[in-house]
Amino acid sequence: MDKPNKLSNLPDEVSGSMILRMIGIVKSMNKEPFLVAGDSDIEMQGELDDVRTELNESSQMISEIIINEDIKNILDGIEEYSHLVVLYWAHKVPEQSRSLTRVHPMGRQELPLRGIFCTCSPARPNPVLLSIVRLFKKEGNKLQVIGLDAIDGSPVVDIKPYVKDLYSQDDVSIPEWMDQLYREMEE
Amino acid sequence: MDKPNKLSNLPDEVSGSMILRMIGIVKSMNKEPFLVAGDSDIEMQGELDDVRTELNESSQMISEIIINEDIKNILDGIEEYSHLVVLYWAHKVPEQSRSLTRVHPMGRQELPLRGIFCTCSPARPNPVLLSIVRLFKKEGNKLQVIGLDAIDGSPVVDIKPYVKDLYSQDDVSIPEWMDQLYREMEE
Repeated sequence: MDKPNKLSNLPDEVSGSMILRMIGIVKSMNKEPFLVAGDSDIEMQGELDDVRTELNESSQMISEIIINEDIKNILDGIEEYSHLVVLYWAHKVPEQSRSLTRVHPMGRQELPLRGIFCTCSPARPNPVLLSIVRLFKKEGNKLQVIGLDAIDGSPVVDIKPYVKDLYSQDDVSIPEWMDQLYREMEE
Repeated sequence: MDKPNKLSNLPDEVSGSMILRMIGIVKSMNKEPFLVAGDSDIEMQGELDDVRTELNESSQMISEIIINEDIKNILDGIEEYSHLVVLYWAHKVPEQSRSLTRVHPMGRQELPLRGIFCTCSPARPNPVLLSIVRLFKKEGNKLQVIGLDAIDGSPVVDIKPYVKDLYSQDDVSIPEWMDQLYREMEE
């Protein structure tokens, strides 16, 4: 009775409508993802030092979000926000990697296997990734933003206003391994 | 040259793969959305006082997320987090409302028309909604969470770990009308 629906026996009106539209595209100097999904795990591309440098640079970098010209008034008033939440599609994740359920976080073999939902792995059943960005400039259908993780060419799925009441939480705890990964990246 | 791709002329490998899988379902005492999309705007259902009471109650309410049994190890280790980010599909938004580009925020006619991306309207081109929740309990493929906005039966799209470094921002500014809406809801 309480059994979850599976994809295979979804009613048509649900499965049929869960198709995402590409409403814009990311232009970025980031050309390749640093985490790549294989058949059974994810792998970090390059050395830790390079990845760290790249991550720190990209957190300061300006990227562009170009919204489809025909719906550009969907941005009307967006310049009144300082920060936005951007949802985008990890288009470089191969279809078969969407069925991974557990990985070594950031491809680090010394860390324990963890469920995908405990990680920021781009390979996930629905590779919709999320970045919180600072809005730098709006020009027509183009937004210049700072701190967008998305690689060049990523399809944009949604943009939401960043409201502190919704996104800022207190008494947050995270696992030791995740905390350690963050500390290493910041060094 | 810099023109955005439109849905109609997307390469097949992009458009074909942007199909979401229902990886779980929400069980909630919230049965109906309080914002409903019409042909040209959104409307609030019921009186402001009732909506306010409902919102305050639901922010304390326990909902259940039931992940498909066959992928339940995707949750392995999730109990080490206090907070999670849940992406879900607004399945009650009619297909035609996905082409709205501007609305009166929360259906309030006295507020200026704003682009959908400046609002939390459930009617958006890709109705993927986001809620930050507190994890109360995990039992097998079931999560009990506090603060999930989703109504009963919403398909779950993704769960991400809530990490303060990513989601907490400083120097945030939002428009006066949004600030006012929040203050009214909290009264």
